[in-house]
Amino acid sequence: MSNAKPQTAITPTRADNYQDWYQEVIKAADLAENSDVRGCMVIKPWGYALWENIQRVLDGMFKDTGHVNAYFPLFIPVSYLEKEAAHVEGFAKECAVVTHHRLEARDGKLVPVGELEEPLVVRPTSETIIGASFARWVQSYRDLPLLINQWANIVRWEMRTRLFLRTTEFLWQEGHTAHATREEAVEETMKMLGVYAEFAEQWMAMPVIQGEKTAGERFPGAVQTFCIEAMMQDRKALQAGTSHFLGQNFSKASGIQFTDANNVPTHAWTTSWGVSTRLIGGMIMTHADDDGLICPPKLAPTQVVILPTGKPEERQRVIEWCRALERDLKARTFAGTPVRVHVDERDLGGGIKVWQWIKKGVPIRLEIGPRDIDKDSVFLGRRDKGPKEKVSMLRGEFVAQVDAMLQEIQDALFARALAFRKEHTREIDTKDDFYAFFADPPKKQANDPTPIHAGFALAHFNGDPALEAKIKEDLKVTVRCIPLGGGEPGTCPFTGQPSKQRVVWAKAY
Amino acid sequence: MSNAKPQTAITPTRADNYQDWYQEVIKAADLAENSDVRGCMVIKPWGYALWENIQRVLDGMFKDTGHVNAYFPLFIPVSYLEKEAAHVEGFAKECAVVTHHRLEARDGKLVPVGELEEPLVVRPTSETIIGASFARWVQSYRDLPLLINQWANIVRWEMRTRLFLRTTEFLWQEGHTAHATREEAVEETMKMLGVYAEFAEQWMAMPVIQGEKTAGERFPGAVQTFCIEAMMQDRKALQAGTSHFLGQNFSKASGIQFTDANNVPTHAWTTSWGVSTRLIGGMIMTHADDDGLICPPKLAPTQVVILPTGKPEERQRVIEWCRALERDLKARTFAGTPVRVHVDERDLGGGIKVWQWIKKGVPIRLEIGPRDIDKDSVFLGRRDKGPKEKVSMLRGEFVAQVDAMLQEIQDALFARALAFRKEHTREIDTKDDFYAFFADPPKKQANDPTPIHAGFALAHFNGDPALEAKIKEDLKVTVRCIPLGGGEPGTCPFTGQPSKQRVVWAKAY
Repeated sequence: MSNAKPQTAITPTRADNYQDWYQEVIKAADLAENSDVRGCMVIKPWGYALWENIQRVLDGMFKDTGHVNAYFPLFIPVSYLEKEAAHVEGFAKECAVVTHHRLEARDGKLVPVGELEEPLVVRPTSETIIGASFARWVQSYRDLPLLINQWANIVRWEMRTRLFLRTTEFLWQEGHTAHATREEAVEETMKMLGVYAEFAEQWMAMPVIQGEKTAGERFPGAVQTFCIEAMMQDRKALQAGTSHFLGQNFSKASGIQFTDANNVPTHAWTTSWGVSTRLIGGMIMTHADDDGLICPPKLAPTQVVILPTGKPEERQRVIEWCRALERDLKARTFAGTPVRVHVDERDLGGGIKVWQWIKKGVPIRLEIGPRDIDKDSVFLGRRDKGPKEKVSMLRGEFVAQVDAMLQEIQDALFARALAFRKEHTREIDTKDDFYAFFADPPKKQANDPTPIHAGFALAHFNGDPALEAKIKEDLKVTVRCIPLGGGEPGTCPFTGQPSKQRVVWAKAY
Repeated sequence: MSNAKPQTAITPTRADNYQDWYQEVIKAADLAENSDVRGCMVIKPWGYALWENIQRVLDGMFKDTGHVNAYFPLFIPVSYLEKEAAHVEGFAKECAVVTHHRLEARDGKLVPVGELEEPLVVRPTSETIIGASFARWVQSYRDLPLLINQWANIVRWEMRTRLFLRTTEFLWQEGHTAHATREEAVEETMKMLGVYAEFAEQWMAMPVIQGEKTAGERFPGAVQTFCIEAMMQDRKALQAGTSHFLGQNFSKASGIQFTDANNVPTHAWTTSWGVSTRLIGGMIMTHADDDGLICPPKLAPTQVVILPTGKPEERQRVIEWCRALERDLKARTFAGTPVRVHVDERDLGGGIKVWQWIKKGVPIRLEIGPRDIDKDSVFLGRRDKGPKEKVSMLRGEFVAQVDAMLQEIQDALFARALAFRKEHTREIDTKDDFYAFFADPPKKQANDPTPIHAGFALAHFNGDPALEAKIKEDLKVTVRCIPLGGGEPGTCPFTGQPSKQRVVWAKAY
């Protein structure tokens, strides 16, 4: 590392090697680690605490929109998968398959025995197994809508994996609903897309674009797939959540049929929608910096960490003052829950502790020593500011405004991410400009740590799948989504043909 | 059904056919159903809501005792299982084995392809996979204790399955901890057993006996296994939770080693402990009656259901009154959360609705019609009393005491279950009495719906595993546990040898 650069807690930096930086942030924040099982991660307590907060908030949003939770089998008979042609085509090539139900020692080695009559697939998604239950549950239009959500683990045998972003096993929620009419199912699809967008922006402080996928990027078996797309700091897009209108494809495959008010047998209209532990990858790549993770305050496992400092003989007095402060802070509310405070009483050097919490991304750090106590003050660092930018503040003043300060940090993170996206989003109107934008990213600039990919291009498009495939081959760039809300019609820069609206093009995870 | 018997909502009754009654209660309460996947159940929304409440409360108790959650891979390499000899012996015969990672169409049929180099087992428990992480995480005594919990799904290939009680896939939590000393690990084992006992008695209203398992019933690989045992209404025992002291067996198998304060390398001492969706089976068989489920109020998904009645022209007025009542009730707190109230506005016959909620086991039902409103009263039925035993009560009076009434129901359920257990527990001092107790259950009596198994026998025992095996063969009766707290020494009625204390014998699930 050159001497001219400021020292950072994470090596390499984003500018030096973005992918390695990502892995190092995860390691330094103690979020997760690889296991000996190919592509399966261990989610460590700090990473899991983030997931618990995500779960709690989303679960509340799902319940507020009328959904209830249930649980369906982990295993799916191969014959179920086969019921929907596009679906099996999409998932057969990456399924973990259970073929035996016992191990026996033979020649000193354990081998699988007890072969199953029909192999079972570990769920890569649950449309078919849930569809079988829905077919039993739905008889009459009075049984509709069915509004079900499941929190579960999912397995897709990925060849190239990366912690949180793409793992063989991941955790997710999958909503599955059945409705009496197409209109209701479409309304549900869009409502849940909106819930995801609201969660991403209001809770994760991660700006997203809501839109529809093109046919090539559609969920296997869906009529329409909608998504939220976010820009990461390397300017690649991350698909952070999807909501699918499944039409009657799966209800026909599974036999979800009801008699309507006129006693006519009809197939239900279904939807499914999901987000996963991938969101944590998105959170990292939206906010983290060269000093480590930055947790959006609303989801931070600890929102305020208190670090007692000072000589051994003053330790007890300082710790007691800190515990009293902790109690007062916990009595305050932020984003609907008591402020999450932790006093780090470990017998470790002050500098080591401070940096551990910086790397873990805790929004507010308080370093408290005898001199602060004498002034009835706290010495405060915010994770959205530089590590050395600290201020002293009266204790009472801080306690009174801790919620406002957390909200201020939340807003600052969102504003910064939104500004970053704006800065790297460009309207492009010619094929040459488009190819130049993606083929030749601008040179690194001092104030831009991650000039790796060009960003989002807003360009018109005639909708031709062959053209989309060509561009993907040429540039590894795809249509991330056709934004909701339309826009002005125009001319496709690649073909000269008419285009209904601009779409978002980008490289993607 | 004979005309002399009172009509019941569940057919058959407990007395007529206990096993079928159990299945029918589950069906009538909409708790769960069998799936097409052998031994795997679908947990329906009402059943899952019970599990969510169990999770919420236990999770809080685990965190209050210093534990944090994490998540470990679903798949376990066969070589991991093999590391602990007793462990693999215990689990190899009931493992779902993943052998391939892709499906391919061959001759119009999907077949598994992409054979794995090493087969993977779907976790039947996670000591070995978590041990591999612990070995990475623990270096020094400063890293201890590690206090981790995981909420997860588990697969054990059971041959005879029964909803909730024994299913191929089930949901559970598994605590895994590592400590610097034997004493700390033993203390943790006992602490978590105590947490389970407190949860069972205070939240589920299910009396339990805490004790240690004999060698034959020990967890594969444990040094000591402790359990909580409850008596079901057929007088069989249900093991409702276990806590294992694992000594250094798994730390040696997994290499969980640390340097102590004197810099000496030492193996950690570990524990594990778990409860599962089996608890719901225990709850059903502790409290349900011939009219269906009875939810203990503290865990009931809905604690008060409000049923508007009356003619169509009065409907709007009644519903508005009910909604206002709902708001007032939700402002009340019971067992740490706002009272869970639901207004059932479905356009269904009043009698049908009332019976649906009785079968679902909601603690308090309010039937509200125009006449009740005119009197500013509620017409109230409690699930711990007969379905026709209803009282009228002033609205304000009910709102003011709803929490006290829920607690009263909770206490009544516990007292009833405790009395039942006492009634069917007997101290036995001769072999003949013992064999007579289990071989010849007393005749059915009018006031005892479930005279199927004799109950719990408290008898002395010399501890000989061969004797225990003989009694199991003769009577299908096992030592459920050696109760904590000891007791008077005595003489083993089977051998005349000395016995340290009485142990609990029973038939068991």
